Amino acid sequence: MRVIYPGSFDPITYGHLDIITRCSEKFDEVIIAVLNNNKKNNLFSVEERIELLEKATKHLPNVETDSFSGLLIDYASEKGCSTIVRGLRVVSDLEYEMQMALVNKKLYPDLETLFLVSSSEFSFLSSSLVREVAAFKGDVGCFVPKDVEIALNEKFKGGSK
Amino acid sequence: MRVIYPGSFDPITYGHLDIITRCSEKFDEVIIAVLNNNKKNNLFSVEERIELLEKATKHLPNVETDSFSGLLIDYASEKGCSTIVRGLRVVSDLEYEMQMALVNKKLYPDLETLFLVSSSEFSFLSSSLVREVAAFKGDVGCFVPKDVEIALNEKFKGGSK
Amino acid sequence: MRVIYPGSFDPITYGHLDIITRCSEKFDEVIIAVLNNNKKNNLFSVEERIELLEKATKHLPNVETDSFSGLLIDYASEKGCSTIVRGLRVVSDLEYEMQMALVNKKLYPDLETLFLVSSSEFSFLSSSLVREVAAFKGDVGCFVPKDVEIALNEKFKGGSK
Amino acid sequence: MRVIYPGSFDPITYGHLDIITRCSEKFDEVIIAVLNNNKKNNLFSVEERIELLEKATKHLPNVETDSFSGLLIDYASEKGCSTIVRGLRVVSDLEYEMQMALVNKKLYPDLETLFLVSSSEFSFLSSSLVREVAAFKGDVGCFVPKDVEIALNEKFKGGSK
Amino acid sequence: MRVIYPGSFDPITYGHLDIITRCSEKFDEVIIAVLNNNKKNNLFSVEERIELLEKATKHLPNVETDSFSGLLIDYASEKGCSTIVRGLRVVSDLEYEMQMALVNKKLYPDLETLFLVSSSEFSFLSSSLVREVAAFKGDVGCFVPKDVEIALNEKFKGGSK
Amino acid sequence: MRVIYPGSFDPITYGHLDIITRCSEKFDEVIIAVLNNNKKNNLFSVEERIELLEKATKHLPNVETDSFSGLLIDYASEKGCSTIVRGLRVVSDLEYEMQMALVNKKLYPDLETLFLVSSSEFSFLSSSLVREVAAFKGDVGCFVPKDVEIALNEKFKGGSK
Repeated sequence: MRVIYPGSFDPITYGHLDIITRCSEKFDEVIIAVLNNNKKNNLFSVEERIELLEKATKHLPNVETDSFSGLLIDYASEKGCSTIVRGLRVVSDLEYEMQMALVNKKLYPDLETLFLVSSSEFSFLSSSLVREVAAFKGDVGCFVPKDVEIALNEKFKGGSK
Repeated sequence: MRVIYPGSFDPITYGHLDIITRCSEKFDEVIIAVLNNNKKNNLFSVEERIELLEKATKHLPNVETDSFSGLLIDYASEKGCSTIVRGLRVVSDLEYEMQMALVNKKLYPDLETLFLVSSSEFSFLSSSLVREVAAFKGDVGCFVPKDVEIALNEKFKGGSK
Repeated sequence: MRVIYPGSFDPITYGHLDIITRCSEKFDEVIIAVLNNNKKNNLFSVEERIELLEKATKHLPNVETDSFSGLLIDYASEKGCSTIVRGLRVVSDLEYEMQMALVNKKLYPDLETLFLVSSSEFSFLSSSLVREVAAFKGDVGCFVPKDVEIALNEKFKGGSK
Repeated sequence: MRVIYPGSFDPITYGHLDIITRCSEKFDEVIIAVLNNNKKNNLFSVEERIELLEKATKHLPNVETDSFSGLLIDYASEKGCSTIVRGLRVVSDLEYEMQMALVNKKLYPDLETLFLVSSSEFSFLSSSLVREVAAFKGDVGCFVPKDVEIALNEKFKGGSK
Repeated sequence: MRVIYPGSFDPITYGHLDIITRCSEKFDEVIIAVLNNNKKNNLFSVEERIELLEKATKHLPNVETDSFSGLLIDYASEKGCSTIVRGLRVVSDLEYEMQMALVNKKLYPDLETLFLVSSSEFSFLSSSLVREVAAFKGDVGCFVPKDVEIALNEKFKGGSK
Repeated sequence: MRVIYPGSFDPITYGHLDIITRCSEKFDEVIIAVLNNNKKNNLFSVEERIELLEKATKHLPNVETDSFSGLLIDYASEKGCSTIVRGLRVVSDLEYEMQMALVNKKLYPDLETLFLVSSSEFSFLSSSLVREVAAFKGDVGCFVPKDVEIALNEKFKGGSK
């Protein structure tokens, strides 16, 4: 069974890595799909985000990283993969995720979204929080892999944001 | 009993139409009040939104469409109508709606807000989701009336957004 | 427009009275329908609950008190009244209320449930909390009408529960 | 991939059947595991619940029905199956489910719980609601399969509960 | 500043101990107040619960354990202590806690309730869950102190519940 | 015990003042810390916000007003104060607050965040709502102190926003 794990990953955190690792153990193949959303002000470019994901998952042979733009259902259909995986950290994530899962199923009836609960030690973690801490020179070493920490420090070395 | 159903309606969906239809059966008169909010980046102008609402509700004789700017309580007062109707799709809608209902009652004690629960087949539906699907050429035929689908396709024919 | 306001009312609180008063101002007629549920361990009998409701609402000419057993939809149908009113105090009330509203509509398509938000000073109030405070001789004078306070003190005069 | 779908199923509803059907399409094998909980007052015995599940799923060749008592992790371990499937209907389901998923993972680190969102037309449906409607002779035909409807009518033919 | 930390503690878990430890560092004195509620079916008697609490907190010199029955506000008043401390594990804890804090403040205006967020590794933990796992001979060693584990095994040695 | 009460206070409302007053009664010293966030479009400058806070709290001798930029943990550390106070109005506030409390504790283990529940009459109140009402010439007299009302009217006297 092949699954797609879509997201912004701006940048990857230990919370994402927890979901990816657990998926790589349960499923035959995991495709990390980075959303290329021009409208959103991302800190890292799609290329940078893919590079950081690849470094963080290079020990997981059945995980590959890709990017997509447009609707997730179109990307899933093109990849011939009808199973999506999403992590749930907190309850407030759920209603948006439920709405997306239901609308995706309406548009592409074969599509199924499977949710995994984040490990409790990462339930408070988000990329936006990591960016904010890093912008003010806070220590993000317990939230992201080493390569991401270096990349964040590089981004913010001139001064906050 | 006359009620006001306020909202952005950018554009009207089958979820809105469900609430409007049910209100038209219970109440003597329903005024759909389109919020004219210059600050928000709307896809459709107020005039376009009113036109799409009028087309979608022309079979309902006790429904009329209007627009307002400023505070809802001022509009309600000016119309001499002290009953507001709002739809609840999901639980996360509620806290904001409760806050608005309480503050409106504080500012205009006669005002009453009545909530209806969206039919379950529309509980995942929102105008923003419809705009996003349409922007990427997804099929919105099961979410909005035909005239709205045509108008959306026209808006996005040159390319997404 | 005639509405039914169903509940256990064991006993009536100022929170219930707030909803009843506001309904009596908006609707032509309000029927308070006390649920006669033998399975539940009620503190007050149906007759006692009706008497306390009648005392608390005797200044509201368009409000009457009744009781029912079985399904609410059967009672509503028998009364020829297809509009239910419910109060929402807190967000956690909502999912149960949404489920009941949706299942009632499925079983009786004409039935409509209208929700009102409790006034903020009563959002923490419930009959079970009032019973608990009264059982331990706490002062319930700011939660319930005088007649209810007397009835509670009578119930618990021998000792808690 | 083999998954366990545990629950009380007292009795099976169309909501459960929706999850079972979708799982049978995605996974190689689905084991429905009926919890044999003596403490809970069930309407149907474990044997009756299994029989109703088997009738409802007999067209799904890769679905089997079983029962267990004690901890789910012990049953999963004994079956050699480390993937659990659960349906999420409403947001309020989630916190309990998250707690169970996290504690199960703590006790049995290989165990993974995958959540599916109920189809929106069944998001208001629960076995307890079906039992309550049936107890008062309400029509449950749109909530449960025909065999379950017959079994419910049989249970309640003498009078409610 | 002296605070009361009330609860059932049936039995104490590492989640409770986390809150107690953090309070003992911030406040001059912490009174753990075990609720003596005859109506609830407790696994451990009040005396047993106090003994387990005292063993678990004996290294914290500014923590003492006590018990109370009746209303918390009466106990707080009698102790001359108007600050209550409560832990929040999950969002669904909050509405009940908010209601209790507001009603307590209404009955005893000087009373203040301070909430602390449980550490994320204990956010899924509850006494009822610990009792359930122990009843079926599951390993509770990562949820409760050693003395509690021994006491639980003793309670359930004859067979579950 | 000294506590920091951080926030945007754009502008201070009676909801903030309720929390500040209650803290000034429980704690030895309260530092109101205005977040100087250049990215956010504030209505009032940091200086104006501090001035309005000082006017509103001048009767509370143990309350002082300050401002900070950057991470709250750095400010708390610099001030030598490891206790933060936050108000909770509604349930939807909580998940964000929980995440911040947990991440702050991770970065600064001595830091403790204490939550107080807003008085129910202010649970619907927020600075953004006050700004919106004032922008359309609505009456904010029951939401903010007199000095703030005057300052708001001054800001919007030329026309809305």
